[in-house]
Amino acid sequence: MKYEQIMQLALERGFYFPSCEIYSDAPAGFWEYGPSGASLKNKFIELWRRELVRRDRMWEIDGSQVMSQLVFVASGHLSSFADPVITCQKCKSVFRADKLIAEISSIVIPESADLDQFDRTVSEKAIRCPKCRGNFENAKKFNMMFRVGIGPQDEPAYLRPETCQSIFVDFPRLYKTMRGRLPIGVAQIGKSFRNEISPRQSLLRLREFYQAEIEVFCNPNTLDEMERFSDVENTVLYMMIDDVIKPMTCREAYESKVVPNKLVAYYLGLLMEFYQKTGIDTGRSRFRKLGEKEKAFYASVAFDFEVETTTGWLELVACNYRSDYDLTSHGKVSKEKFEVLDDNVKVLPHVFELSMGIDRSLYTILEHSFREDKENDRVVLSLKPYLAPVHVGILSLVKKDGLAEKTEEIFSKMKTRYDAFLDHSGAIGRRYRRLDEVGAPFAVTVDHQTLQDDTVTIRMRDSMSQERIKIPDLDFYLSRSVSYP
Amino acid sequence: MKYEQIMQLALERGFYFPSCEIYSDAPAGFWEYGPSGASLKNKFIELWRRELVRRDRMWEIDGSQVMSQLVFVASGHLSSFADPVITCQKCKSVFRADKLIAEISSIVIPESADLDQFDRTVSEKAIRCPKCRGNFENAKKFNMMFRVGIGPQDEPAYLRPETCQSIFVDFPRLYKTMRGRLPIGVAQIGKSFRNEISPRQSLLRLREFYQAEIEVFCNPNTLDEMERFSDVENTVLYMMIDDVIKPMTCREAYESKVVPNKLVAYYLGLLMEFYQKTGIDTGRSRFRKLGEKEKAFYASVAFDFEVETTTGWLELVACNYRSDYDLTSHGKVSKEKFEVLDDNVKVLPHVFELSMGIDRSLYTILEHSFREDKENDRVVLSLKPYLAPVHVGILSLVKKDGLAEKTEEIFSKMKTRYDAFLDHSGAIGRRYRRLDEVGAPFAVTVDHQTLQDDTVTIRMRDSMSQERIKIPDLDFYLSRSVSYP
Repeated sequence: MKYEQIMQLALERGFYFPSCEIYSDAPAGFWEYGPSGASLKNKFIELWRRELVRRDRMWEIDGSQVMSQLVFVASGHLSSFADPVITCQKCKSVFRADKLIAEISSIVIPESADLDQFDRTVSEKAIRCPKCRGNFENAKKFNMMFRVGIGPQDEPAYLRPETCQSIFVDFPRLYKTMRGRLPIGVAQIGKSFRNEISPRQSLLRLREFYQAEIEVFCNPNTLDEMERFSDVENTVLYMMIDDVIKPMTCREAYESKVVPNKLVAYYLGLLMEFYQKTGIDTGRSRFRKLGEKEKAFYASVAFDFEVETTTGWLELVACNYRSDYDLTSHGKVSKEKFEVLDDNVKVLPHVFELSMGIDRSLYTILEHSFREDKENDRVVLSLKPYLAPVHVGILSLVKKDGLAEKTEEIFSKMKTRYDAFLDHSGAIGRRYRRLDEVGAPFAVTVDHQTLQDDTVTIRMRDSMSQERIKIPDLDFYLSRSVSYP
Repeated sequence: MKYEQIMQLALERGFYFPSCEIYSDAPAGFWEYGPSGASLKNKFIELWRRELVRRDRMWEIDGSQVMSQLVFVASGHLSSFADPVITCQKCKSVFRADKLIAEISSIVIPESADLDQFDRTVSEKAIRCPKCRGNFENAKKFNMMFRVGIGPQDEPAYLRPETCQSIFVDFPRLYKTMRGRLPIGVAQIGKSFRNEISPRQSLLRLREFYQAEIEVFCNPNTLDEMERFSDVENTVLYMMIDDVIKPMTCREAYESKVVPNKLVAYYLGLLMEFYQKTGIDTGRSRFRKLGEKEKAFYASVAFDFEVETTTGWLELVACNYRSDYDLTSHGKVSKEKFEVLDDNVKVLPHVFELSMGIDRSLYTILEHSFREDKENDRVVLSLKPYLAPVHVGILSLVKKDGLAEKTEEIFSKMKTRYDAFLDHSGAIGRRYRRLDEVGAPFAVTVDHQTLQDDTVTIRMRDSMSQERIKIPDLDFYLSRSVSYP
C-alpha cells in the first residue's frame, strides 16, 4: 500500500513525476525531481559529503558522463554488460529471456548462460509470446549501455553505466597531483545510464539514475592496518548470515571474519552511520553477502546493503571488493601505469567500493518517514529537519490588518538562510497539513498579537505543539534545529 | 598568456583535466573536474541557489537529460539546431561550412543560409580541404543533438541540448501543484549536450557542459508591475549601446528603454548582484543586446552577459525573452494546455530566461582571481573565501614532538564543517604556496608554542600576514570568514 501512497504524494507535492509526461511517446524509466524532491536530494547529497567524503578526507571529482569506447573495452562492459533477450517474430515484443522463461516454465537459467540454452528451453517448453502467442526468434545479447556518436564522423562513445569508471581512469593524475596516501577514497555523485529492458516502479528501476560512488584505493597487503577503525568499531551492523540477520559491532564482524578485513569493516561502519542520519530505520537494514553467481563480474567479495520497504528488501548500496580488476584492465588497454608508491613500496592498489543508489535511497527515506496520523486526519513526513525540502513555513493567520506585510518581512529575513515557504491563502489548518506533507518541521504564524509584542507562534510538525517566540530569536532557534548533525 | 597559466594550474592542482585522458581514442570536448574544481563548482552552485533561487523564491527542479523526440520536434531543435558542414571527398575531414568559407575567402554567409549558397561559394572561390587539398562534397546540415536509442527497439530520444526544455514540459504540473503565482522562476542545474564540430579551449566550448538555467514565467500584460524591482533599482549594469559600454542603474536602464521592461531589468539586476559575489570583476562585464541575425531562433529580445578575459569577451549568460514561443510550440505538439489563471484572467505565460554557462563562469572566476605575486615568488588564487576549494590548510610545523598528533586533533574537529586540508610534509613555505595556488584563504599552523599555550598561527592568503589565535576561537573565526555573504 505504501508504495502507492508515496507515489501519490510525490506527484501532488512536487517530489517526483514522469519525465516528458505531456508527450505520448515519452520513453519509460525517466523521472524528474520536482522542487520538493530536488531539495531533498540536494540535502541528502550534502549529508553524504559531510559524513563520508569530508569525514574520511576523500577526494570528490565530477567527470564526464559520455566516455570513450576503450574505457568500456577495458572495463568489460562492452562485452559483458548485456542481458539475454528474445524477440517475438510476429509482434516484435522483446523480453528478458531468463525472466520470461522462469515465469512461464519455472526453469531458472542464469542470465550469463550461453544463448543456445535459452533457445533450447524455449523450444522444448514451447514458450510463446505472452502478448500475441507468436514464436520467438533466437535469443540475442542486448548491451545495456547507451551508445552516442561523437562529431560528424559518428565516432562511438557510451553514456557511462556506472560513475566509477571516471574514477579509475582519473586515478593516475589524481594520485600524482593531490598528495594523498593509501588508503584514499575517491568519490563522485552523478548520473549513470542503463538501457533497462523493463524499467519499473518509478525511482526503483530507472534508465537514467543518480549514483554516489566511493572507490577506496588501498594496499592489499595492509587491509588490517586501518588506523581510523577505532572511530566505528562499536557501530552496529546487521549482518545476514545463513539467512539470519545478526546484529554485531564492526569489531565483532571483523574479528569473527564475517567481513574479510578491517578496511571493509571500517567502510561498512561509516556507511551505517551515514544511513542512521538519513532517517531510514536502520533496524530494518541488512548487509547481505552475495553468492558467486549473484556478484557483478568485477567483484571478488560483495555485500549488498539492503533495507526493508513495502516493495521488499531494496538494495541501496553495493559494497564490492573489486580487487585490482579495474586498474589491471585499464592498465592493459591504455598502457598507463597504475602502480603507486606506498611507504616506498611499489604496489598496484586494490579497490573497495560503496556504490550508492541515490534515487532508491530517497524513496526509502520517504517511505520510512511517511506516517498516517488518522487521529488528526493528516499525513506527515517525519523527515530529519536538515533533509526537509522546506525548513519552515511562514504564514499569516489572515491576510489583512497588516499581517501579510509583517509576514513578508519575516520571510525576507529567512529566505536565503533557510528553505522557507511563504503562504498567505487558505484555511490555516489546511496550510499546516500541506506543510506536514512536504515534511516541513516548523511553521511560523504571524497573528494580531505579533503586531503588539513582536512574537510569533512556532508549530512543531511531529507533535503539533505550538509555542510563542520572539521574532529576533527565530534565527537562532531555526539555525540550531535544522543544521546538520 | 593567462589562459595557458590557468590551464597549467588546473591540470596540476586538480581543477580540471581532459576526460579519459589515458586513452588515445578519447573524444575531444569532454573534461573532468578534479577535487579542487568540483569543490569550487559545488560552492558556486550553492551561491547561485542562495542569490537567485532562494532570494527570488524560485522552484528548482532536476529533470532527465534523455528526453522524448517529440520534445525536440516541438522546440524546433530537431529541424533547426544544426550547423552547415562540408566534408572533404578525399580525406573525409569535416568543417563548419560558414567558418571555413569565412576563413579562406572572407565571405560571410550566415549559418542559417540555404545549403546551395555554401556550395556556390565553395565552387566559385575554388575552396579546397585545408588538410589534403581535396574537393568538398555538397554542404549538409549536421544536427548538434546526440541521439540515443531507447530499449531493444531503439526508439529515438535525445540528450537535451539545453536544460530548459524540462522546465517547459514540466510547467503544467508544477504550476498546478506548487501554489505559486506569476511571475515565477523555475530553475535547474544540470548537464546539457551539444555535438560541437570543433570543441576547443577546455571549459569554454564543451560537448558536455553544465548549465544553470532560470525560466521566469510571466504575464506579458504586467511586465512593468514588478513589485520586487525596488530591491535592485540602484544596481549598476554595464549596458553596451552602439558599441559603447555605459554604466547605468537598473532604474535608468528601464526608464530609458535600454531594456524593454521592468521584469527584464529586475532579473538583469539580480544576475549582476550574483556575479559581484563570485569575485568576477563585473567592471569588465557588459550586457550586449543581440541583433536579429545573432539571436537564437526562439528569442524575441536577447542580451548576452559577457565578461572580458584573456580569451576575449566571453558569453557567460544568455538572457533571452522567449515570449510564448516554447509554451505555444509544446502546446501544439502535445495538446497540453499551458494557459494559467493570473488574478483570475486566463493567460498564456511568456518566458524570460537566464541561461548560465557554469563551466565558463568557473573559468572566468579562476582567471579573474589569478595573481602572480612575483615579489614573493608565488601564484595566488584570490578566490572569495566561501568559494575556495579548501577553506583552511591545517599544517604541522614539523612532524615530530607530538605536533603531528595535535594537528590531526584540530583537523578532526574542523573537517566536517569546513573543507580542511591536512598537510604534514615538506617545507612549510612550499606548503603555503600550494595552498595559495588552490585559493585556500587561511592556513593554520601548529608549532611548539601550541603545546604550551593552546594557540596556533593563522596565515592570510592575500596579505601573507599571520596572527596567533586560541584554538577554541578557531571555529568562530572560520565560520565568520568563510560563510556565504
